Amino acid sequence: MKGKAVVLVSGGLDSATCLAIAQQQGFEVTCLCIDYGQRHAIEVDRARRVAEASGSPLRVVRLDLRAIGGSSLTAEIPVPKGRSSAEMASGIPPTYVPARNTVFLALALGLAERIGAQDIFIGVNAIDYSGYPDCRPEFIRAFESLAQLATRAGVEGAKFSIHAPLSGMTKAQIIREGMRLGVDYSLTHSCYDPAPDGAACGQCDSCLLRRRGFSEAGLPDPTRYVARPA
Amino acid sequence: MKGKAVVLVSGGLDSATCLAIAQQQGFEVTCLCIDYGQRHAIEVDRARRVAEASGSPLRVVRLDLRAIGGSSLTAEIPVPKGRSSAEMASGIPPTYVPARNTVFLALALGLAERIGAQDIFIGVNAIDYSGYPDCRPEFIRAFESLAQLATRAGVEGAKFSIHAPLSGMTKAQIIREGMRLGVDYSLTHSCYDPAPDGAACGQCDSCLLRRRGFSEAGLPDPTRYVARPA
Repeated sequence: MKGKAVVLVSGGLDSATCLAIAQQQGFEVTCLCIDYGQRHAIEVDRARRVAEASGSPLRVVRLDLRAIGGSSLTAEIPVPKGRSSAEMASGIPPTYVPARNTVFLALALGLAERIGAQDIFIGVNAIDYSGYPDCRPEFIRAFESLAQLATRAGVEGAKFSIHAPLSGMTKAQIIREGMRLGVDYSLTHSCYDPAPDGAACGQCDSCLLRRRGFSEAGLPDPTRYVARPA
Repeated sequence: MKGKAVVLVSGGLDSATCLAIAQQQGFEVTCLCIDYGQRHAIEVDRARRVAEASGSPLRVVRLDLRAIGGSSLTAEIPVPKGRSSAEMASGIPPTYVPARNTVFLALALGLAERIGAQDIFIGVNAIDYSGYPDCRPEFIRAFESLAQLATRAGVEGAKFSIHAPLSGMTKAQIIREGMRLGVDYSLTHSCYDPAPDGAACGQCDSCLLRRRGFSEAGLPDPTRYVARPA
Protein backbone atom coordinates (compact mmCIF):
# COMPACT_ATOMS: atom_id res chain seq x y z
CA MET A 1 0.00 0.00 0.00
CA LYS A 2 1.45 3.33 -1.11
CA GLY A 3 -0.41 5.65 1.23
CA LYS A 4 -3.52 7.76 0.95
CA ALA A 5 -4.61 9.60 -2.17
CA VAL A 6 -7.47 11.89 -3.14
CA VAL A 7 -8.97 11.25 -6.58
CA LEU A 8 -11.22 13.86 -8.18
CA VAL A 9 -14.21 12.00 -9.57
CA SER A 10 -16.78 13.65 -11.82
CA GLY A 11 -18.82 10.68 -12.96
CA GLY A 12 -17.16 10.86 -16.37
CA LEU A 13 -15.07 8.39 -18.32
CA ASP A 14 -11.69 10.00 -17.66
CA SER A 15 -11.97 10.32 -13.89
CA ALA A 16 -13.36 6.78 -13.56
CA THR A 17 -10.26 5.52 -15.36
CA CYS A 18 -8.01 7.75 -13.26
CA LEU A 19 -9.58 6.27 -10.13
CA ALA A 20 -8.90 2.72 -11.34
CA ILE A 21 -5.27 3.65 -12.09
CA ALA A 22 -4.77 5.16 -8.62
CA GLN A 23 -6.18 2.01 -7.01
CA GLN A 24 -4.10 -0.22 -9.25
CA GLN A 25 -0.97 1.71 -8.21
CA GLY A 26 -1.73 0.72 -4.63
CA PHE A 27 -3.08 3.94 -3.16
CA GLU A 28 -5.71 3.99 -0.44
CA VAL A 29 -8.14 6.21 -2.31
CA THR A 30 -10.71 8.74 -1.12
CA CYS A 31 -12.85 10.06 -3.98
CA LEU A 32 -13.86 13.71 -4.09
CA CYS A 33 -16.76 14.96 -6.19
CA ILE A 34 -17.55 18.66 -6.49
CA ASP A 35 -21.26 19.32 -6.92
CA TYR A 36 -20.81 22.74 -8.50
CA GLY A 37 -24.25 23.39 -9.88
CA GLN A 38 -23.36 21.98 -13.29
CA ARG A 39 -26.30 21.75 -15.68
CA HIS A 40 -25.60 18.08 -16.16
CA ALA A 41 -26.36 17.30 -12.51
CA ILE A 42 -26.55 13.63 -13.41
CA GLU A 43 -22.75 13.75 -13.05
CA VAL A 44 -22.93 13.72 -9.26
CA ASP A 45 -25.19 10.66 -9.28
CA ARG A 46 -22.78 8.91 -11.62
CA ALA A 47 -19.82 9.89 -9.45
CA ARG A 48 -21.55 8.16 -6.54
CA ARG A 49 -22.05 5.01 -8.61
CA VAL A 50 -18.48 5.00 -9.91
CA ALA A 51 -17.09 5.45 -6.40
CA GLU A 52 -19.40 2.77 -5.02
CA ALA A 53 -18.34 0.31 -7.72
CA SER A 54 -14.68 1.04 -6.93
CA GLY A 55 -15.11 0.34 -3.23
CA SER A 56 -13.45 3.64 -2.26
CA PRO A 57 -15.21 6.19 -0.04
CA LEU A 58 -16.58 9.37 -1.60
CA ARG A 59 -16.90 12.90 -0.28
CA VAL A 60 -19.17 15.35 -2.06
CA VAL A 61 -18.52 19.07 -1.60
CA ARG A 62 -21.23 21.49 -2.68
CA LEU A 63 -20.10 24.70 -4.34
CA ASP A 64 -22.41 27.03 -6.20
CA LEU A 65 -20.40 28.07 -9.26
CA ARG A 66 -23.61 29.41 -10.83
CA ALA A 67 -22.93 32.47 -8.66
CA ILE A 68 -19.94 33.04 -10.94
CA GLY A 69 -21.35 31.67 -14.20
CA GLY A 70 -19.63 32.41 -17.49
CA SER A 71 -19.82 28.88 -18.90
CA SER A 72 -22.25 26.70 -20.82
CA LEU A 73 -22.10 24.37 -17.83
CA THR A 74 -23.08 26.94 -15.18
CA ALA A 75 -25.15 29.51 -17.06
CA GLU A 76 -27.62 29.78 -19.94
CA ILE A 77 -24.98 29.68 -22.67
CA PRO A 78 -25.54 27.10 -25.44
CA VAL A 79 -23.34 23.99 -25.56
CA PRO A 80 -21.64 23.77 -29.00
CA LYS A 81 -22.69 20.74 -31.04
CA GLY A 82 -21.23 18.79 -33.93
CA ARG A 83 -17.76 20.38 -33.88
CA SER A 84 -15.01 18.79 -35.93
CA SER A 85 -11.62 17.81 -34.47
CA ALA A 86 -10.14 20.87 -36.18
CA GLU A 87 -12.71 23.13 -34.53
CA MET A 88 -12.01 21.55 -31.13
CA ALA A 89 -8.30 22.21 -31.65
CA SER A 90 -8.83 25.84 -32.60
CA GLY A 91 -9.71 27.53 -29.32
CA ILE A 92 -11.34 27.30 -25.92
CA PRO A 93 -15.09 26.65 -26.15
CA PRO A 94 -17.87 28.13 -23.97
CA THR A 95 -18.00 24.91 -21.94
CA TYR A 96 -14.83 26.14 -20.25
CA VAL A 97 -15.67 26.95 -16.61
CA PRO A 98 -13.52 29.83 -15.32
CA ALA A 99 -10.71 28.49 -13.12
CA ARG A 100 -12.56 25.21 -12.51
CA ASN A 101 -9.59 22.91 -12.16
CA THR A 102 -7.83 25.42 -9.91
CA VAL A 103 -10.87 25.37 -7.64
CA PHE A 104 -11.15 21.57 -7.82
CA LEU A 105 -7.47 20.98 -7.08
CA ALA A 106 -7.61 23.50 -4.22
CA LEU A 107 -10.47 21.56 -2.66
CA ALA A 108 -8.67 18.26 -3.27
CA LEU A 109 -5.61 19.75 -1.59
CA GLY A 110 -7.70 20.76 1.42
CA LEU A 111 -9.13 17.24 1.68
CA ALA A 112 -5.69 15.67 1.17
CA GLU A 113 -4.28 17.73 4.01
CA ARG A 114 -7.30 16.87 6.15
CA ILE A 115 -6.94 13.11 5.74
CA GLY A 116 -3.14 12.99 5.65
CA ALA A 117 -2.74 12.26 1.92
CA GLN A 118 0.10 13.66 -0.18
CA ASP A 119 -1.10 12.37 -3.55
CA ILE A 120 -3.88 13.87 -5.64
CA PHE A 121 -5.16 12.38 -8.90
CA ILE A 122 -6.97 14.35 -11.58
CA GLY A 123 -8.18 12.85 -14.85
CA VAL A 124 -7.19 15.69 -17.14
CA ASN A 125 -6.26 14.89 -20.67
CA ALA A 126 -4.26 17.05 -23.03
CA ILE A 127 -4.73 15.14 -26.28
CA ASP A 128 -8.40 14.33 -26.95
CA TYR A 129 -9.76 17.34 -25.11
CA SER A 130 -11.41 20.69 -25.63
CA GLY A 131 -8.36 22.92 -25.25
CA TYR A 132 -9.03 23.92 -21.66
CA PRO A 133 -5.99 25.76 -20.25
CA ASP A 134 -6.30 24.07 -16.87
CA CYS A 135 -5.82 20.61 -18.38
CA ARG A 136 -2.27 21.31 -19.58
CA PRO A 137 0.78 19.70 -17.94
CA GLU A 138 2.33 23.11 -17.16
CA PHE A 139 -0.76 24.03 -15.14
CA ILE A 140 -0.58 20.77 -13.19
CA ARG A 141 3.11 21.33 -12.39
CA ALA A 142 2.44 24.92 -11.26
CA PHE A 143 -0.31 23.72 -8.95
CA GLU A 144 2.00 21.11 -7.47
CA SER A 145 4.51 23.85 -6.57
CA LEU A 146 1.76 25.98 -5.08
CA ALA A 147 0.53 23.08 -2.92
CA GLN A 148 3.80 22.99 -0.99
CA LEU A 149 3.48 26.66 -0.05
CA ALA A 150 -0.26 26.66 0.52
CA THR A 151 -0.61 24.19 3.34
CA ARG A 152 0.38 23.43 6.91
CA ALA A 153 1.31 19.94 5.76
CA GLY A 154 3.63 21.40 3.11
CA VAL A 155 5.30 23.67 5.67
CA GLU A 156 5.72 20.65 7.94
CA GLY A 157 7.47 18.63 5.26
CA ALA A 158 4.79 16.83 3.27
CA LYS A 159 5.61 16.52 -0.43
CA PHE A 160 2.47 16.83 -2.51
CA SER A 161 2.23 15.16 -5.90
CA ILE A 162 -0.46 15.97 -8.43
CA HIS A 163 -0.89 12.94 -10.68
CA ALA A 164 -2.44 13.35 -14.12
CA PRO A 165 -1.94 9.81 -15.47
CA LEU A 166 -4.18 10.34 -18.53
CA SER A 167 -2.37 13.45 -19.66
CA GLY A 168 -0.49 11.88 -22.56
CA MET A 169 -3.11 9.31 -23.56
CA THR A 170 -5.61 9.39 -26.40
CA LYS A 171 -9.25 8.73 -25.53
CA ALA A 172 -8.95 5.27 -27.08
CA GLN A 173 -5.91 4.48 -24.93
CA ILE A 174 -7.75 5.67 -21.83
CA ILE A 175 -10.70 3.42 -22.62
CA ARG A 176 -8.50 0.41 -23.31
CA GLU A 177 -6.62 0.93 -20.05
CA GLY A 178 -9.88 1.34 -18.14
CA MET A 179 -11.32 -1.84 -19.64
CA ARG A 180 -8.15 -3.69 -18.69
CA LEU A 181 -8.60 -2.46 -15.11
CA GLY A 182 -12.26 -3.45 -15.04
CA VAL A 183 -13.93 -0.02 -15.22
CA ASP A 184 -17.64 -0.31 -15.97
CA TYR A 185 -18.12 2.57 -18.41
CA SER A 186 -21.87 2.05 -18.43
CA LEU A 187 -21.83 3.80 -15.03
CA THR A 188 -20.10 6.87 -16.42
CA HIS A 189 -21.54 9.95 -18.05
CA SER A 190 -19.71 12.36 -20.35
CA CYS A 191 -22.41 14.47 -22.03
CA TYR A 192 -22.51 18.21 -21.38
CA ASP A 193 -26.15 18.50 -22.35
CA PRO A 194 -28.08 15.35 -21.48
CA ALA A 195 -31.79 14.87 -22.03
CA PRO A 196 -34.03 15.01 -18.94
CA ASP A 197 -33.96 11.20 -18.79
CA GLY A 198 -30.14 11.21 -18.74
CA ALA A 199 -29.57 10.11 -22.36
CA ALA A 200 -26.45 11.65 -23.88
CA CYS A 201 -26.85 14.17 -26.73
CA GLY A 202 -24.19 12.49 -28.88
CA GLN A 203 -23.13 15.81 -30.43
CA CYS A 204 -21.33 17.91 -27.79
CA ASP A 205 -17.52 17.85 -27.70
CA SER A 206 -17.56 15.46 -24.79
CA CYS A 207 -19.91 12.98 -26.52
CA LEU A 208 -17.97 13.25 -29.78
CA LEU A 209 -14.64 12.55 -28.05
CA ARG A 210 -16.17 9.65 -26.16
CA ARG A 211 -17.79 8.11 -29.23
CA ARG A 212 -14.60 8.42 -31.25
CA GLY A 213 -12.61 6.94 -28.37
CA PHE A 214 -14.74 3.79 -28.21
CA SER A 215 -14.70 3.54 -31.98
CA GLU A 216 -10.89 3.86 -32.20
CA ALA A 217 -10.46 1.41 -29.33
CA GLY A 218 -12.62 -1.05 -31.24
CA LEU A 219 -14.85 -1.50 -28.21
CA PRO A 220 -18.62 -1.19 -27.80
CA ASP A 221 -19.78 2.15 -26.38
CA PRO A 222 -22.27 1.42 -23.58
CA THR A 223 -23.65 4.97 -23.62
CA ARG A 224 -27.35 5.54 -24.19
CA TYR A 225 -27.62 8.37 -26.75
CA VAL A 226 -30.69 10.44 -27.60
CA ALA A 227 -30.23 9.82 -31.30
CA ARG A 228 -28.21 6.72 -31.94
CA PRO A 229 -25.25 7.64 -34.17
CA ALA A 230 -25.29 6.00 -37.60
CA MET B 1 -10.13 54.43 -13.34
CA LYS B 2 -7.67 51.56 -13.34
CA GLY B 3 -9.95 48.78 -14.46
CA LYS B 4 -11.92 46.07 -12.73
CA ALA B 5 -10.78 44.24 -9.61
CA VAL B 6 -12.14 41.45 -7.43
CA VAL B 7 -11.71 41.98 -3.69
CA LEU B 8 -12.16 39.05 -1.30
CA VAL B 9 -14.31 40.31 1.56
CA SER B 10 -14.89 38.29 4.71
CA GLY B 11 -16.61 40.83 6.93
CA GLY B 12 -13.41 41.20 8.95
CA LEU B 13 -11.20 44.18 9.65
CA ASP B 14 -8.41 43.29 7.22
CA SER B 15 -10.55 42.68 4.16
CA ALA B 16 -12.62 45.82 4.81
CA THR B 17 -9.39 47.82 4.80
CA CYS B 18 -8.17 45.99 1.70
CA LEU B 19 -11.42 46.91 -0.06
CA ALA B 20 -10.98 50.59 0.84
CA ILE B 21 -7.40 50.50 -0.48
CA ALA B 22 -8.48 48.94 -3.79
CA GLN B 23 -11.15 51.60 -4.22
CA GLN B 24 -8.75 54.35 -3.28
CA GLN B 25 -6.30 53.08 -5.92
CA GLY B 26 -9.02 53.67 -8.50
CA PHE B 27 -10.20 50.12 -9.25
CA GLU B 28 -13.79 49.36 -10.18
CA VAL B 29 -14.35 46.80 -7.44
CA THR B 30 -16.54 43.72 -7.25
CA CYS B 31 -16.54 42.15 -3.78
CA LEU B 32 -16.54 38.38 -3.38
CA CYS B 33 -17.55 36.67 -0.15
CA ILE B 34 -17.26 32.92 0.30
CA ASP B 35 -19.96 31.51 2.55
CA TYR B 36 -18.03 28.36 3.45
CA GLY B 37 -19.99 27.08 6.39
CA GLN B 38 -17.78 28.83 8.91
CA ARG B 39 -19.00 28.58 12.51
CA HIS B 40 -18.94 32.35 12.74
CA ALA B 41 -21.66 32.72 10.10
CA ILE B 42 -22.13 36.32 11.20
CA GLU B 43 -19.16 37.00 8.89
CA VAL B 44 -21.30 36.76 5.77
CA ASP B 45 -23.82 39.25 7.16
CA ARG B 46 -20.97 41.62 7.99
CA ALA B 47 -19.45 41.17 4.54
CA ARG B 48 -22.78 42.31 3.08
CA ARG B 49 -22.77 45.39 5.30
CA VAL B 50 -19.14 46.25 4.52
CA ALA B 51 -19.75 45.90 0.78
CA GLU B 52 -22.95 47.93 0.97
CA ALA B 53 -21.19 50.72 2.87
CA SER B 54 -18.42 50.74 0.26
CA GLY B 55 -20.85 51.10 -2.64
CA SER B 56 -19.28 48.18 -4.53
CA PRO B 57 -21.36 45.18 -5.65
CA LEU B 58 -21.00 41.88 -3.80
CA ARG B 59 -21.20 38.29 -4.96
CA VAL B 60 -21.62 35.52 -2.42
CA VAL B 61 -20.54 32.02 -3.38
CA ARG B 62 -21.68 29.13 -1.20
CA LEU B 63 -19.20 26.34 -0.57
CA ASP B 64 -19.63 23.69 2.07
CA LEU B 65 -16.16 23.30 3.56
CA ARG B 66 -17.70 21.41 6.49
CA ALA B 67 -17.62 18.43 4.11
CA ILE B 68 -13.83 18.66 4.44
CA GLY B 69 -13.58 19.90 8.04
CA GLY B 70 -10.27 19.74 9.86
CA SER B 71 -10.44 23.21 11.39
CA SER B 72 -11.90 24.93 14.43
CA LEU B 73 -13.84 27.07 11.95
CA THR B 74 -15.48 24.20 10.05
CA ALA B 75 -15.66 21.35 12.59
CA GLU B 76 -16.12 20.73 16.29
CA ILE B 77 -12.54 21.56 17.24
CA PRO B 78 -12.10 24.13 20.04
CA VAL B 79 -10.88 27.64 19.18
CA PRO B 80 -7.72 28.43 21.23
CA LYS B 81 -8.16 31.29 23.69
CA GLY B 82 -5.86 33.67 25.51
CA ARG B 83 -2.70 32.86 23.55
CA SER B 84 0.32 35.11 23.94
CA SER B 85 2.13 36.70 20.97
CA ALA B 86 4.91 34.13 21.46
CA GLU B 87 2.38 31.28 21.28
CA MET B 88 0.84 32.75 18.13
CA ALA B 89 4.31 32.93 16.56
CA SER B 90 5.16 29.33 17.46
CA GLY B 91 3.07 27.30 15.01
CA ILE B 92 -0.10 26.98 13.00
CA PRO B 93 -3.21 26.84 15.22
CA PRO B 94 -6.34 24.68 14.72
CA THR B 95 -8.20 27.67 13.26
CA TYR B 96 -6.20 27.04 10.09
CA VAL B 97 -8.64 25.86 7.38
CA PRO B 98 -6.93 23.42 4.98
CA ALA B 99 -6.06 25.20 1.73
CA ARG B 100 -8.60 27.95 2.39
CA ASN B 101 -6.82 30.82 0.68
CA THR B 102 -6.01 28.60 -2.31
CA VAL B 103 -9.72 27.87 -2.64
CA PHE B 104 -10.68 31.52 -2.11
CA LEU B 105 -8.15 32.83 -4.64
CA ALA B 106 -9.23 30.18 -7.14
CA LEU B 107 -12.83 31.36 -6.85
CA ALA B 108 -11.70 35.00 -7.07
CA LEU B 109 -9.76 34.10 -10.20
CA GLY B 110 -12.85 32.49 -11.71
CA LEU B 111 -14.91 35.59 -10.98
CA ALA B 112 -12.14 37.89 -12.25
CA GLU B 113 -12.03 36.00 -15.53
CA ARG B 114 -15.83 36.07 -15.71
CA ILE B 115 -16.11 39.85 -15.33
CA GLY B 116 -12.95 40.77 -17.22
CA ALA B 117 -10.82 41.78 -14.23
CA GLN B 118 -7.09 41.15 -14.02
CA ASP B 119 -6.58 42.36 -10.46
CA ILE B 120 -7.46 40.44 -7.32
CA PHE B 121 -7.11 41.82 -3.79
CA ILE B 122 -6.78 39.67 -0.68
CA GLY B 123 -6.37 41.08 2.82
CA VAL B 124 -3.75 38.66 4.06
CA ASN B 125 -1.29 39.85 6.63
CA ALA B 126 2.05 38.30 7.44
CA ILE B 127 2.97 40.26 10.58
CA ASP B 128 0.10 40.32 13.11
CA TYR B 129 -1.33 36.98 12.09
CA SER B 130 -1.72 33.39 13.19
CA GLY B 131 1.07 31.85 11.14
CA TYR B 132 -1.16 30.51 8.37
CA PRO B 133 1.01 29.28 5.48
CA ASP B 134 -1.38 30.66 2.87
CA CYS B 135 -0.92 34.22 4.10
CA ARG B 136 2.78 34.36 3.21
CA PRO B 137 4.09 36.48 0.31
CA GLU B 138 5.68 33.44 -1.36
CA PHE B 139 2.27 31.77 -1.51
CA ILE B 140 0.71 34.86 -3.07
CA ARG B 141 3.44 35.05 -5.72
CA ALA B 142 3.05 31.34 -6.54
CA PHE B 143 -0.69 31.78 -6.99
CA GLU B 144 -0.10 34.73 -9.30
CA SER B 145 2.08 32.53 -11.53
CA LEU B 146 -0.54 29.79 -11.49
CA ALA B 147 -3.29 32.22 -12.50
CA GLN B 148 -1.63 32.88 -15.84
CA LEU B 149 -1.61 29.17 -16.69
CA ALA B 150 -5.00 28.34 -15.22
CA THR B 151 -7.29 30.51 -17.28
CA ARG B 152 -8.51 31.23 -20.78
CA ALA B 153 -7.87 34.92 -20.09
CA GLY B 154 -4.26 34.14 -19.15
CA VAL B 155 -3.76 32.14 -22.33
CA GLU B 156 -5.22 35.00 -24.30
CA GLY B 157 -2.79 37.53 -22.82
CA ALA B 158 -4.36 38.84 -19.61
CA LYS B 159 -1.79 39.54 -16.88
CA PHE B 160 -3.23 38.70 -13.48
CA SER B 161 -1.99 40.49 -10.38
CA ILE B 162 -2.72 39.29 -6.87
CA HIS B 163 -2.56 42.27 -4.55
CA ALA B 164 -1.92 41.77 -0.85
CA PRO B 165 -1.54 45.39 0.26
CA LEU B 166 -1.67 44.60 3.99
CA SER B 167 1.08 42.02 3.81
CA GLY B 168 3.83 44.12 5.38
CA MET B 169 1.63 46.13 7.77
CA THR B 170 1.07 45.69 11.49
CA LYS B 171 -2.54 45.52 12.68
CA ALA B 172 -2.19 49.05 14.08
CA GLN B 173 -0.98 50.33 10.70
CA ILE B 174 -3.88 48.59 8.97
CA ILE B 175 -6.38 50.20 11.33
CA ARG B 176 -4.85 53.66 10.94
CA GLU B 177 -4.91 53.33 7.16
CA GLY B 178 -8.52 52.13 7.22
CA MET B 179 -9.58 55.02 9.45
CA ARG B 180 -7.87 57.43 7.08
CA LEU B 181 -9.85 55.93 4.20
CA GLY B 182 -13.12 56.11 6.13
CA VAL B 183 -13.66 52.43 6.94
CA ASP B 184 -16.39 51.97 9.54
CA TYR B 185 -14.90 49.21 11.69
CA SER B 186 -18.09 48.92 13.71
CA LEU B 187 -19.48 47.01 10.70
CA THR B 188 -16.65 44.47 10.78
CA HIS B 189 -16.34 41.26 12.73
CA SER B 190 -13.11 39.45 13.57
CA CYS B 191 -14.00 36.91 16.30
CA TYR B 192 -13.62 33.19 15.56
CA ASP B 193 -16.05 32.21 18.29
CA PRO B 194 -18.77 34.82 18.75
CA ALA B 195 -21.66 34.52 21.21
CA PRO B 196 -25.09 33.73 19.72
CA ASP B 197 -25.92 37.45 19.80
CA GLY B 198 -22.79 38.24 17.75
CA ALA B 199 -20.67 39.65 20.60
CA ALA B 200 -16.96 38.91 20.15
CA CYS B 201 -15.26 36.54 22.62
CA GLY B 202 -12.30 38.87 23.15
CA GLN B 203 -9.89 35.95 23.71
CA CYS B 204 -9.35 34.12 20.41
CA ASP B 205 -6.27 34.99 18.31
CA SER B 206 -8.34 37.14 16.02
CA CYS B 207 -9.88 39.16 18.87
CA LEU B 208 -6.52 39.51 20.61
CA LEU B 209 -4.83 40.78 17.43
CA ARG B 210 -7.70 43.18 16.80
CA ARG B 211 -7.74 44.52 20.37
CA ARG B 212 -4.00 45.01 20.38
CA GLY B 213 -4.18 46.71 16.99
CA PHE B 214 -6.68 49.32 18.15
CA SER B 215 -4.73 49.81 21.35
CA GLU B 216 -1.42 50.31 19.52
CA ALA B 217 -3.09 52.61 17.01
CA GLY B 218 -4.40 54.67 19.93
CA LEU B 219 -7.91 54.45 18.56
CA PRO B 220 -11.17 53.32 20.17
CA ASP B 221 -12.16 49.72 19.36
CA PRO B 222 -15.85 49.76 18.34
CA THR B 223 -16.19 46.00 18.88
CA ARG B 224 -18.82 44.68 21.29
CA TYR B 225 -17.11 42.01 23.42
CA VAL B 226 -18.77 39.38 25.61
CA ALA B 227 -16.54 40.24 28.55
CA ARG B 228 -15.17 43.73 28.25
CA PRO B 229 -11.36 43.53 28.55
CA ALA B 230 -9.91 45.27 31.57
